[in-house]
Amino acid sequence: MLSKKTILFFLASLVLWAAEPLSSWRDNATKDRIVAFVEKVTDKKSKAYVKPEDRIAVFDNDGTMWPEMPLYFELQFAIDEIKRVAPSRPAFRKQMPYKAVLDNRMDLLLEKEAKRNILTLLAATHVGMDDETFARNVKRWLEKPHPRFHRPYISLVYKPMLELWRYLEANGFTVFIVSGGGIDFMRAWIPGRYGIASHRVIGSYAQTKFKNGEIHKLPNVAFIDDKENKPVAIYRIIGKRPILACGNSDGDLAMLQYTAAGKGVSLPIYIHHTDAKREYAYDRKSAVGRLEKGLDEAIKRQWLLVDMKRDWKRVFEEK
Amino acid sequence: MLSKKTILFFLASLVLWAAEPLSSWRDNATKDRIVAFVEKVTDKKSKAYVKPEDRIAVFDNDGTMWPEMPLYFELQFAIDEIKRVAPSRPAFRKQMPYKAVLDNRMDLLLEKEAKRNILTLLAATHVGMDDETFARNVKRWLEKPHPRFHRPYISLVYKPMLELWRYLEANGFTVFIVSGGGIDFMRAWIPGRYGIASHRVIGSYAQTKFKNGEIHKLPNVAFIDDKENKPVAIYRIIGKRPILACGNSDGDLAMLQYTAAGKGVSLPIYIHHTDAKREYAYDRKSAVGRLEKGLDEAIKRQWLLVDMKRDWKRVFEEK
Repeated sequence: MLSKKTILFFLASLVLWAAEPLSSWRDNATKDRIVAFVEKVTDKKSKAYVKPEDRIAVFDNDGTMWPEMPLYFELQFAIDEIKRVAPSRPAFRKQMPYKAVLDNRMDLLLEKEAKRNILTLLAATHVGMDDETFARNVKRWLEKPHPRFHRPYISLVYKPMLELWRYLEANGFTVFIVSGGGIDFMRAWIPGRYGIASHRVIGSYAQTKFKNGEIHKLPNVAFIDDKENKPVAIYRIIGKRPILACGNSDGDLAMLQYTAAGKGVSLPIYIHHTDAKREYAYDRKSAVGRLEKGLDEAIKRQWLLVDMKRDWKRVFEEK
Repeated sequence: MLSKKTILFFLASLVLWAAEPLSSWRDNATKDRIVAFVEKVTDKKSKAYVKPEDRIAVFDNDGTMWPEMPLYFELQFAIDEIKRVAPSRPAFRKQMPYKAVLDNRMDLLLEKEAKRNILTLLAATHVGMDDETFARNVKRWLEKPHPRFHRPYISLVYKPMLELWRYLEANGFTVFIVSGGGIDFMRAWIPGRYGIASHRVIGSYAQTKFKNGEIHKLPNVAFIDDKENKPVAIYRIIGKRPILACGNSDGDLAMLQYTAAGKGVSLPIYIHHTDAKREYAYDRKSAVGRLEKGLDEAIKRQWLLVDMKRDWKRVFEEK
């Protein structure tokens, strides 16, 4: 028979396990640093205390919250949609970037102005369509299997990152997505998947026109929420400098610099893709999600580098 | 001695009074319509039920949340600041709109492009200054007395409107300011005064540049959050169509049309300045806050017209 002590120990472990907010993170220096930062800014007796209204955290999405390989998922969606509607749009055959898609020349899309090409393609999948129809198309597509993981794209959100969000929220942070992704694509699924309001999703957008009570989307890109534009969007929309920022590529560097330059404490975080086995390994040489200047600066300034392979017990939720 | 019944009645009245969410509104058809709308969209058994995440309400600020006479308060602030810094800025003497301020020709500021002139002046009061210094200047200025009411500008927020906000929030609404005002001016005081996060303040903004970890404000206006731009900003930033919108001038008409064009129920509201005695009376002929096309459309489409004189028990908080 089990002793009372054994049963109590077992129960206590269960409670600890359930209460453990970052259970997919290994118990190491990375996790310790995140927890130490959060404890410091929420401790009223600490010099580093930050009032709840100033606990702003911003996260990139592609490569930070879910994979971006072999192609940005949003780009893969746009490609599939362009191919789907191509029969009724003969002009696509002759015009870039649509032509590159129909010719299966993805290299041409990524070699220059990758984000603009993606957004242009995305906008084309959206013109003349109401928001509900577009959102339905996105959600249907997200149920398709990823070519390598053979499970729906929507299921590939990193489990440790969602745990980090819940942990920050439980500690009074307001968390925002600040991504180069298109706002309509992201708002179709992020609020439901991450459990946040649509206004906490900041991204790129096409030009629009208001007429007869409706917002009409035009095919040209108005704002690309990448690089120096990320802090600009944060200033315009959030109106406060974040104290925590998390990205994975050079496109996030300005956002991390903006965060680090605050007067008080801050935690700039780079997710480093080091796990070829469970996910992907890439940084300085990658066409998608290149991390070169950012990696140098993170090392030089001792920002937190999350090493996926070393720091995450698991990457995805169980199937 | 008081009977038990009397005491109970007295206590019950006290409780009712404390629980009365719109106590500065007269008990009439206007209040009934607001309450009926809120009860309908929050009643799960109603056909008009709206999920909490879709209960978006947007409010204009000048003339809707506080007065805008004899001049927009923000314009008065900019004028006072321009005059204050003029000795060190000789170029102001020759250049519009600064020259108009120094010549006391407010008519020239308002006759054309009023919002752009105001924003240009505001931007000039902000260039080369950090956010804290600017916010301090704004807050200090807001303690100055209004020329007619002889009490601080900051105290002139309409009491019935703050009650309406609290009532909406208590019923699961997320409330945003969507105003032509400059975001830095508004964010200096609105979050504290209205009890909302800075990212719920949407407004006009100057061009900015990110450099060396900082947002640098440039003197030119990048986005004027007025007229057709209000629904555009709502789409870009909030990402949902509001079900309740409240304004007071033709500058709010597009925002109210956008709200009214939703598929479900909606409540577009115009605050009508009808109270020359307690506040001001103006609409079709006013240079500031003109309500002409909006008034016609509100009457034709039976939007809710709040008649300040008839519908509000009191306008301001007691001194």
